[in-house]
Amino acid sequence: MNEAAITLDGWYALHDFRSIDWASWKLVSQDERQAAVEEFIQYLEKLNEADTAKTGAHAFYAIVGQKADFMIMTLRETMDELQELEAEFNKLAIADFTIPAYSYVSVVELSNYLAGESNEDPYQNPHVRARLYPELPRSKYVCFYPMDKRREGNDNWYMLSMDERKSLMRSHGMIGRGYAGKVKQIITGSVGFDDHEWGVTLFADDVLQFKKLVYEMRFDEVSARYGEFGEFFVGNLLDNEKLVEFLSVNK
Amino acid sequence: MNEAAITLDGWYALHDFRSIDWASWKLVSQDERQAAVEEFIQYLEKLNEADTAKTGAHAFYAIVGQKADFMIMTLRETMDELQELEAEFNKLAIADFTIPAYSYVSVVELSNYLAGESNEDPYQNPHVRARLYPELPRSKYVCFYPMDKRREGNDNWYMLSMDERKSLMRSHGMIGRGYAGKVKQIITGSVGFDDHEWGVTLFADDVLQFKKLVYEMRFDEVSARYGEFGEFFVGNLLDNEKLVEFLSVNK
Amino acid sequence: MNEAAITLDGWYALHDFRSIDWASWKLVSQDERQAAVEEFIQYLEKLNEADTAKTGAHAFYAIVGQKADFMIMTLRETMDELQELEAEFNKLAIADFTIPAYSYVSVVELSNYLAGESNEDPYQNPHVRARLYPELPRSKYVCFYPMDKRREGNDNWYMLSMDERKSLMRSHGMIGRGYAGKVKQIITGSVGFDDHEWGVTLFADDVLQFKKLVYEMRFDEVSARYGEFGEFFVGNLLDNEKLVEFLSVNK
Amino acid sequence: MNEAAITLDGWYALHDFRSIDWASWKLVSQDERQAAVEEFIQYLEKLNEADTAKTGAHAFYAIVGQKADFMIMTLRETMDELQELEAEFNKLAIADFTIPAYSYVSVVELSNYLAGESNEDPYQNPHVRARLYPELPRSKYVCFYPMDKRREGNDNWYMLSMDERKSLMRSHGMIGRGYAGKVKQIITGSVGFDDHEWGVTLFADDVLQFKKLVYEMRFDEVSARYGEFGEFFVGNLLDNEKLVEFLSVNK
Amino acid sequence: MNEAAITLDGWYALHDFRSIDWASWKLVSQDERQAAVEEFIQYLEKLNEADTAKTGAHAFYAIVGQKADFMIMTLRETMDELQELEAEFNKLAIADFTIPAYSYVSVVELSNYLAGESNEDPYQNPHVRARLYPELPRSKYVCFYPMDKRREGNDNWYMLSMDERKSLMRSHGMIGRGYAGKVKQIITGSVGFDDHEWGVTLFADDVLQFKKLVYEMRFDEVSARYGEFGEFFVGNLLDNEKLVEFLSVNK
Repeated sequence: MNEAAITLDGWYALHDFRSIDWASWKLVSQDERQAAVEEFIQYLEKLNEADTAKTGAHAFYAIVGQKADFMIMTLRETMDELQELEAEFNKLAIADFTIPAYSYVSVVELSNYLAGESNEDPYQNPHVRARLYPELPRSKYVCFYPMDKRREGNDNWYMLSMDERKSLMRSHGMIGRGYAGKVKQIITGSVGFDDHEWGVTLFADDVLQFKKLVYEMRFDEVSARYGEFGEFFVGNLLDNEKLVEFLSVNK
Repeated sequence: MNEAAITLDGWYALHDFRSIDWASWKLVSQDERQAAVEEFIQYLEKLNEADTAKTGAHAFYAIVGQKADFMIMTLRETMDELQELEAEFNKLAIADFTIPAYSYVSVVELSNYLAGESNEDPYQNPHVRARLYPELPRSKYVCFYPMDKRREGNDNWYMLSMDERKSLMRSHGMIGRGYAGKVKQIITGSVGFDDHEWGVTLFADDVLQFKKLVYEMRFDEVSARYGEFGEFFVGNLLDNEKLVEFLSVNK
Repeated sequence: MNEAAITLDGWYALHDFRSIDWASWKLVSQDERQAAVEEFIQYLEKLNEADTAKTGAHAFYAIVGQKADFMIMTLRETMDELQELEAEFNKLAIADFTIPAYSYVSVVELSNYLAGESNEDPYQNPHVRARLYPELPRSKYVCFYPMDKRREGNDNWYMLSMDERKSLMRSHGMIGRGYAGKVKQIITGSVGFDDHEWGVTLFADDVLQFKKLVYEMRFDEVSARYGEFGEFFVGNLLDNEKLVEFLSVNK
Repeated sequence: MNEAAITLDGWYALHDFRSIDWASWKLVSQDERQAAVEEFIQYLEKLNEADTAKTGAHAFYAIVGQKADFMIMTLRETMDELQELEAEFNKLAIADFTIPAYSYVSVVELSNYLAGESNEDPYQNPHVRARLYPELPRSKYVCFYPMDKRREGNDNWYMLSMDERKSLMRSHGMIGRGYAGKVKQIITGSVGFDDHEWGVTLFADDVLQFKKLVYEMRFDEVSARYGEFGEFFVGNLLDNEKLVEFLSVNK
Repeated sequence: MNEAAITLDGWYALHDFRSIDWASWKLVSQDERQAAVEEFIQYLEKLNEADTAKTGAHAFYAIVGQKADFMIMTLRETMDELQELEAEFNKLAIADFTIPAYSYVSVVELSNYLAGESNEDPYQNPHVRARLYPELPRSKYVCFYPMDKRREGNDNWYMLSMDERKSLMRSHGMIGRGYAGKVKQIITGSVGFDDHEWGVTLFADDVLQFKKLVYEMRFDEVSARYGEFGEFFVGNLLDNEKLVEFLSVNK
């Protein structure tokens, strides 16, 4: 049997994309809308407390185009907490004015393709821990897409030997390193949890860097021959002030 | 003609995934909601009686992400009972606040790939019976996905000889055995019943074991070359107490 | 040019799958529901008269799982009658509580792959006529799926010579014959009428025979290399008594 | 570069498929329904005037099965007129009781594959003009499907030389000619206008001829290796009398 | 690693396709409709001011067929502005009578395949700037489609060397040049932003030129072997007068 990659796994991740039902939102009274926004902000501040306590992390972005209106990404210690946060959101008043658009369930993952040999427990290594239980930056832009490694005819990633995969991933990693300081990347694994094998979440202050990074990688053999990509989402950072503005209607 | 695999078939299975229409659920009175929850719990307790009487089995989980809010899996002696249970659920008050999200019709299946030769009737063998008419555990987590064996160009499972298939399945089974005690696996066959050829239901107290198992198997030739996978669902165990909590809204 | 198969064509067929909108159904009064059920039963009895008069045939089954709640299959002399029956159903009160789930338009078909040479007009042959204008049995279970013959790279059915196709179909037919007395099979052709090339409708008193038949055939080259399958539906026979029970709600 | 086919292009075509929302239609008063039907008939008669004046053409059919309830096909001199007719339909009362089901935008097309050499302007040739600006017959049945020429591995139509394509199309055309007098065929090109490359609209008084024609062609290399087919629709001719009958409900 | 193409990137682009909910639109009063149209026209005039100030550009077209009723394409300096314009549209009264149909997020792009060598900064070159920050013409017709370069077996664009890609693109560009003066083409890149790799927006006063251009290109190796195409939309120019006419209903 072919040698399987070994992963290190950190916080569980839920990406929750919602569309706003603007027509219904406009129908209710200004007071009702204000109460719903305030309650929503309280929910977001509760999320923020977990970021501060380092018991989890979250990101909140307005999505461009019709695929969704906003996305809340949450990272937590357990799958149970993700489901509880989702249910808690659904019970908010604002949720009644949203339509589920897309979601993704995964877990922060590091693979052993790029790891050196070591006798120490990686889960005790502070550098590793910082990547498995990451802070999520407040970058101006976010990009999310799920992906698979291809298994088709002669282009079958899972039939390659460990050495071939390691060597391909190393060259792939080099491209990523060229974007250090420009793009922060969180890889989450979703085999057994959702429809694709990985989720990729990118953060940047210059939205063009998403395109440059993903396009450059596409010419690399790992993507060119073995990458299969799902839907792409791109969004702008929302803070409380922008959220109030986003949800305000003159009616 | 190629030699077909022979299967042993046990209880029929319905996986019924539902989303909750939270906005409608909040609109009705606290009393109406309470009555609906109590009636739902009675239904679940009736399901439980079949588990106790060993005339069937069921599992009930909250699903993470937007694909569904909960899943009821029922095993029964006949296809008729599955349809009756489905209709009975649809007539519950709670059903009016749910939206069908996904379902799967299949039958618990054992294949002869791993079986030794024997003259006895396997349906009389207690070990076999325990697997064909299984108790479903109350593990903390569930994972469900449907799958096919590929029939594409040179990767055509159904054109392999029985010996090739047996040898491939043996290596595949070895991986599964490595997860004994961590993951309980129920294979249900759905050829002629639903859109894929099999359903796989996994139970574990550590949700990460789903990912580890499915990912490790993906490097095995049976999955790498011949596996085609449908949607993946992952969920957290619901008991009566958690269900009440899940469905409670402060309105 | 490659020699095309010749078909004999009998009655036109409409498979009409509907889901019930249970929440709306519960909302109306007991009297309104009773009237709707009685009117529906009258419609079904009118269908039955055609079966008796041998001017057509029909089958009526409850479908298991969320794909549909019931299926009415009608066979008639002309495409016009199928459309009229469909419109007539839509005008029933019960139709307002159903949601279209899936339909299939085709015509009962026999191909010349298995036919011997003969000078007589096959449309005058009583054995042939019994298959082109078939009675539909009141078996306990039904299975329906549409399918295509593959045209992909080296697996292109339509590029095989007539002799190769004949020989492959003969072996395929042998499997079917092994199920004589257990499974009744109606093949309907839909090239030019609907999205797949054929519909397959199976009837049996033991639902497991559907799985056994379809799975055994999948190892035969005709299915293994050349079969492409659409959605599968499985259902339980409905008679008037069961229909009343199925549609009764305690509200 | 490979030599591209040259086309002659005639009237623009819109195929507009609609489903009827029967439950809403039954809810309004008999008077309101009658007014809506009369207004609809006026619209259809206006379409008919263009047929008479030879400034366009139209066809109107009831569609069998759940894909749609009726289809209006309109041919006009300009794309603008198609859009205006569509908007005009949407403003009719009957439109409020219909649900968009499918549409197709294309232009009547003749290719040069079968053309001989000539110095005259084909747009002045009365035989060519009759095909580019065709009358649409009032045949009893219609069939519509969109299609593409395949571009996959070794089966890439667009990489074949003009001579190969010409020779393949000639054999394909021979089959069509065998149905002269039985099936009238309108080919419309939709490259740049809609999701497939062509639409095929067939008219016949014997609905079985659609199946015979399309099935026979499927064994021809042009279809067998290079044809990719979209959805198929089949329908029965509607005249004013049948329309009134179709839309009448006893409520 | 294979040499990646380098791009120049200009204004960000949002293509926003909407369907009109005609039944709801007819339900409100003539006054309410008029107010909504006037507010919509103000929004469009604000868009127009950006065109005049050359701080952006927009195009507004009625779409033919059921895919959408109109499309607003906006080009802006930042991704943030696109999202703000989208939110602003959603807050208009007219938005409550529209249904999101499709959208596309991208950025105006020039690739280096056709560029000569130069030491100057291309972003300072006025010819380049005119293409990166383009005026959008008021042509009578628009065509939009997204596309990918294929990565399949032997037809893998991203595994070709830079020289092979350059040479293929040169021949492709020659076809485009043949339509100079007839079709204006805007290429927008969407890798990392939306589901396909590019969006193609064509403008012309003769709608047939879209079909001629796209069809001719399909025989070119770049499209024939390497092009994968998404949905196609075609539309007619809307000005204020036509918009008022389009949205006027006699109720």
